Amino acid sequence: MLEDKNQSRTSLSELGEFKLIDHLTKQTVIHHHQTIKGIGDDCAVIGRGEVQTLVTTDLLVEGVHFDLSYMPLKHLGYKAVVVNLSDVYAMNGDAKQITVSIAVSNRFPLEALEELYAGIHLACKAYQVDLVGGDTTSSTKGLLISITALGEVKKEKCVYRNGAKSKDLLVVTGDLGAAYLGLQVLEREKQVFQVNPNAEHELENYTYLVERQLKPEARKDIIQLLADLEVQPTSMIDISDGLSSEILHLCKQSNTGCQLFEDKIPLDQQVISTCEEFNIDSTTIALSGGEDYELLFTVKQEDFPKIKANPNFSIIGYMTDEANVAELVTRGGQKVAIVAQGWNAMK
Amino acid sequence: MLEDKNQSRTSLSELGEFKLIDHLTKQTVIHHHQTIKGIGDDCAVIGRGEVQTLVTTDLLVEGVHFDLSYMPLKHLGYKAVVVNLSDVYAMNGDAKQITVSIAVSNRFPLEALEELYAGIHLACKAYQVDLVGGDTTSSTKGLLISITALGEVKKEKCVYRNGAKSKDLLVVTGDLGAAYLGLQVLEREKQVFQVNPNAEHELENYTYLVERQLKPEARKDIIQLLADLEVQPTSMIDISDGLSSEILHLCKQSNTGCQLFEDKIPLDQQVISTCEEFNIDSTTIALSGGEDYELLFTVKQEDFPKIKANPNFSIIGYMTDEANVAELVTRGGQKVAIVAQGWNAMK
Repeated sequence: MLEDKNQSRTSLSELGEFKLIDHLTKQTVIHHHQTIKGIGDDCAVIGRGEVQTLVTTDLLVEGVHFDLSYMPLKHLGYKAVVVNLSDVYAMNGDAKQITVSIAVSNRFPLEALEELYAGIHLACKAYQVDLVGGDTTSSTKGLLISITALGEVKKEKCVYRNGAKSKDLLVVTGDLGAAYLGLQVLEREKQVFQVNPNAEHELENYTYLVERQLKPEARKDIIQLLADLEVQPTSMIDISDGLSSEILHLCKQSNTGCQLFEDKIPLDQQVISTCEEFNIDSTTIALSGGEDYELLFTVKQEDFPKIKANPNFSIIGYMTDEANVAELVTRGGQKVAIVAQGWNAMK
Repeated sequence: MLEDKNQSRTSLSELGEFKLIDHLTKQTVIHHHQTIKGIGDDCAVIGRGEVQTLVTTDLLVEGVHFDLSYMPLKHLGYKAVVVNLSDVYAMNGDAKQITVSIAVSNRFPLEALEELYAGIHLACKAYQVDLVGGDTTSSTKGLLISITALGEVKKEKCVYRNGAKSKDLLVVTGDLGAAYLGLQVLEREKQVFQVNPNAEHELENYTYLVERQLKPEARKDIIQLLADLEVQPTSMIDISDGLSSEILHLCKQSNTGCQLFEDKIPLDQQVISTCEEFNIDSTTIALSGGEDYELLFTVKQEDFPKIKANPNFSIIGYMTDEANVAELVTRGGQKVAIVAQGWNAMK
C-alpha cells in the first residue's frame, strides 16, 4: 500500500526539463486529426476550419519561478499572464482567453489575492484577453499559479518552430539580457536588505532592468507589425529560456544550422553598463539570461528589405544547411558552438 | 520592498472556494463575442461557428486533494485526467485534448513520474483524448498536477447549468457516496498501517468503494446514451462536490427551486452496508460526499418515457418555481432545506 522504497531511482535533475518532457510524453498517441500540433512547439494547434485554436500552459511556483520578497503580487499576476500570451504570439496568433488556477497557502490573506488578480485583470485589459475559468485551492506551501492561454490563428498564418530553411535570416525583436540582469539586481538588493533593513534602495540606475524583470510585456505589437509589413516568418519561438536555447530549438526542429553574429545581438545601454559594473560578459547574459519574452524568428532573404530598417528588429544571423551546427561568430571572428545554458526550472 | 505586515488581513477560509472565486473574478470583463460562457459553469464555452470549444481546468495538490500513501501514482494520473473530462461531459460535449502541467519536488524519482504518466496515457486512450502540451517544473514541496481539458460540442447541444425550468425532472446517473466512503476506508487502513505495519489489509468488503475513490470514471457513455435516446437535458453539472452542492448550483443559476426525494437517491449495496458499519447516515454521504463524477441533469417532463426504464438513470426529484428553495423530502415525508456541505478544498 505504501511506496516501495526499494524501487530504482533516477533523479529528475539528471535529465533536465526538456529531456524529462520528451521522456514522459514519448508514448503519446494522437487520436484526433483536428490535433494538428501536440507537444513540441510554443502552443498546441487544434483546427477544423480556416481558423485554428492555439493552446499553451505555464506553471509558476513560489520559490522556483518567483520570490515574493521583491515581486509585488500585482506584478506577478501581470507577468504570469504575459508569459503565456507570449507563447501564443510566438505562433503568429492572437491570444483570446485564459484560465487561471491558483493554489495558495493560508499564509496569504484575501487582500494578497486581490492584488494578484488586479495584475491578472490589468494584463487581460492590456492584451484584450478574456479570463474564462480556473480553479482555486489551498496549498500546503506557498503560492502556485497555473495559466492556460487560448488563441487563434488563420491556418496559413500559423508559424511553427520547424519551418526555417537554409539561408533564412535570423531576426530578434527588442533587446536581450535585461530581465536576467534585473533579477540579479533585485537579488543583490534583497541581500543588502537582509543585512541592513534600513539601507537605501539603489535601483535608479537599473530601472529598465528591473522593469523587464518585474513587468515584462509580450510582443503582441510585433504580430500586428509583421502582418502590416506582409512578412510571414518561416519559423518562430519566444525567448523565455535565453537566446541560445531558443536558437537550438529552431535548429533542431527545422533540421538546420545557424550562424549567429555576436556584434549583432541587441543590447540596451543599461545592460552594457551593468555588465561592466558586475564584471560579466554581456553576450553570455544575452545568450543565457532568459525571461526576455522577445520573439526570435526566421524570414526568407527576400523579406530583408521589409525588415532591415525597422527599429523593432535586429537581424542577428542566418540559418545554414548544416543540421544542428549552431555557432556564434564572435567579434574577433572566431566560431564558437552555441550551447544551451538557459534557465532551467528543473534545476 | 518586502511585504507590508500591517496590511488588513481577511482569512481565505472565511470565504470558502466559491465565494473566493466570485470575489476575485467579479471585475472580469469579456472583450470577445466568441467568449460565449466564461466563469460559472463546468466549462468555458468559446465559439465561432456550429461547433463550440469547451475549456475546463483543475488543480490537484498533494496533501490537499490526494494522499500518496494510499493513492498509487498511476491511479492518480488516471484520476487527474478523468475529473477534468467529467466537466466536458457535463456540458454535453466530447473531450478531445488535454494539457498536463506538473510541479514536483526532488523527492520524486523519474520512475514515479513514469507511473503518473502511465495513468495519464491510459486515461487518454480510454477516453480518446490527445495529450497536446503542458509544463514540467520543480516544486518546493510535494506534487501538484494542473490539467486543462478541451472539448467540442455542437452549439445546439451545449447544456449549461442555467437552463432548468420549473417542473423539469431531476436525474442523476449511477450511484452516489461510494467514492467518499472509499476515502474513509483508505484513511482507516492508513491509520491501522501506521500503528501496525504488518496488519493485514481488510479491503475485500469495500472493493467498489475503493475503486470509486482510486479509479473513478467520467460518464462519457452517458453523453452518447442521451444522444441515442434523443434527450437534450435542460441543465447539467457533474457531481464533484456532492449532490447538495450541485443541486444548489443548478437552482441558483437556473433561478429555480428543487424538491429532492430521499428514497430516490441511488445507493450501492456496499454504500448502505458500510454506512451501517460506520454508523453514519447514507443520505448524508450521498448528499455531501463528493467525488462521484456522476452527472446530474434536468429534463423536460415529456422526456420521462425515454428516461424512466433506463438503469443508468435515477429520477430523484423535480424543479420548482420557488427560486433557490431546495428541499429534501425525507423518507418520513418531512421537508428539510438542502445545504451545501460539499467537500471544500479551501478548508
